[in-house]
Amino acid sequence: MVQDSNLGSHISRRFDHELESIRNQVLTMGGLVETQVNRGLKGLLESDSEIARKVVQDDYKINRMEVEIDDKCVKILARRQPAASDLRLVVAIIKTITDLERIGDQAEKLGRNQLELVDDGTSLSNYVNLEHLGELVSRMLNRALDAFARMDVEEALKTIALDEKINAEFEAIMRQLITHMMEDPRTIRSALRVSWCARALERIGDHSKNICEYIVFLVQGKDVRHTGKRDQDS
Amino acid sequence: MVQDSNLGSHISRRFDHELESIRNQVLTMGGLVETQVNRGLKGLLESDSEIARKVVQDDYKINRMEVEIDDKCVKILARRQPAASDLRLVVAIIKTITDLERIGDQAEKLGRNQLELVDDGTSLSNYVNLEHLGELVSRMLNRALDAFARMDVEEALKTIALDEKINAEFEAIMRQLITHMMEDPRTIRSALRVSWCARALERIGDHSKNICEYIVFLVQGKDVRHTGKRDQDS
Repeated sequence: MVQDSNLGSHISRRFDHELESIRNQVLTMGGLVETQVNRGLKGLLESDSEIARKVVQDDYKINRMEVEIDDKCVKILARRQPAASDLRLVVAIIKTITDLERIGDQAEKLGRNQLELVDDGTSLSNYVNLEHLGELVSRMLNRALDAFARMDVEEALKTIALDEKINAEFEAIMRQLITHMMEDPRTIRSALRVSWCARALERIGDHSKNICEYIVFLVQGKDVRHTGKRDQDS
Repeated sequence: MVQDSNLGSHISRRFDHELESIRNQVLTMGGLVETQVNRGLKGLLESDSEIARKVVQDDYKINRMEVEIDDKCVKILARRQPAASDLRLVVAIIKTITDLERIGDQAEKLGRNQLELVDDGTSLSNYVNLEHLGELVSRMLNRALDAFARMDVEEALKTIALDEKINAEFEAIMRQLITHMMEDPRTIRSALRVSWCARALERIGDHSKNICEYIVFLVQGKDVRHTGKRDQDS
């Protein structure tokens, strides 16, 4: 609301350019987060410690991007006076990168647990198949990032709905794991570790859902959070 | 930087008033979150289903406050052009209430798990004593909120340091639970439930730490996140 009246079109163009550059950085961060999640999964499913170690090592890159983008957002709010819709974009970005960073933490956790499972001499496939849950989560994250890139509310709403499937799959895995542990108590330690991986995946789903909710807030100016049953894990 | 030159002192005072009112709302939200956590703990430790049910029922109040405060923050950013330090306060508030809301979710989880433990006919004290972890977490949350109320960086930094104690206590509880499960596999289902309560408490510690980091960012204009080993759970 201030942007066009107070600032010349030259400055206004520069503002658009800055905002576009921040948006692109978020997309780059999203791409990196996606790579980390997919590598974390691959490490786990293929018992590949080298990839798992790489995931753990690379987490700092995501953390650094969060701090950088956050800083740019505060600066753009301070230097320009963004109009209502631009302002919502900046606020949505500040929230989105928090969730992206936490997805990164979950990917790192997949990596760490893979390394510990290898130390235990355990093969994941002895317990449950995390592959299906992993696929669902990876697809949900991809769609959330895609919805963000295109600011596509419809896609965001469809993506939010996927979270229930993920929660159901997570519950099924937990039931399987409990049965395993009861049948053979020697597997408890490793089965717990597998359950933490499943939990990490489930939480990536929650964070992807959060991102989609920010898109709806951003485009429609409407807050869709807490309108249904909120996930307990976020 | 714009506030004093562009706006009259009348408007400027009104702005201060609005900002102060948002800050007070955050403190009220913090108080409610603290009550929820302490009730969730009490329900769990004293096997009091009535309190547990109240915690689950009241979570919506916290969710509603988050949406309201968020909305006010976006409006204040749009209508006023806050100077650098005020701007940082608004951004810190937007981040703080996200963590407060998630602490509320963890408190709700304590309540839900208490109700399920009662359904199982299990007494928590059969497994481990969550009391010490609960006390640590409750104290950390209290100190984080206090640091926020007084914008006290020193207190915030001291509070951040408490998180390591909480993580150590959490690990000790997990080890105890695993031993229990191995010794008596019939306890696996309930022991897992207790482990989820311990995890919820540990995550309240993480969120309290996040809040303290925002205080440092706010007061010093310096980002202390990701400077040390980041907790894996956040």
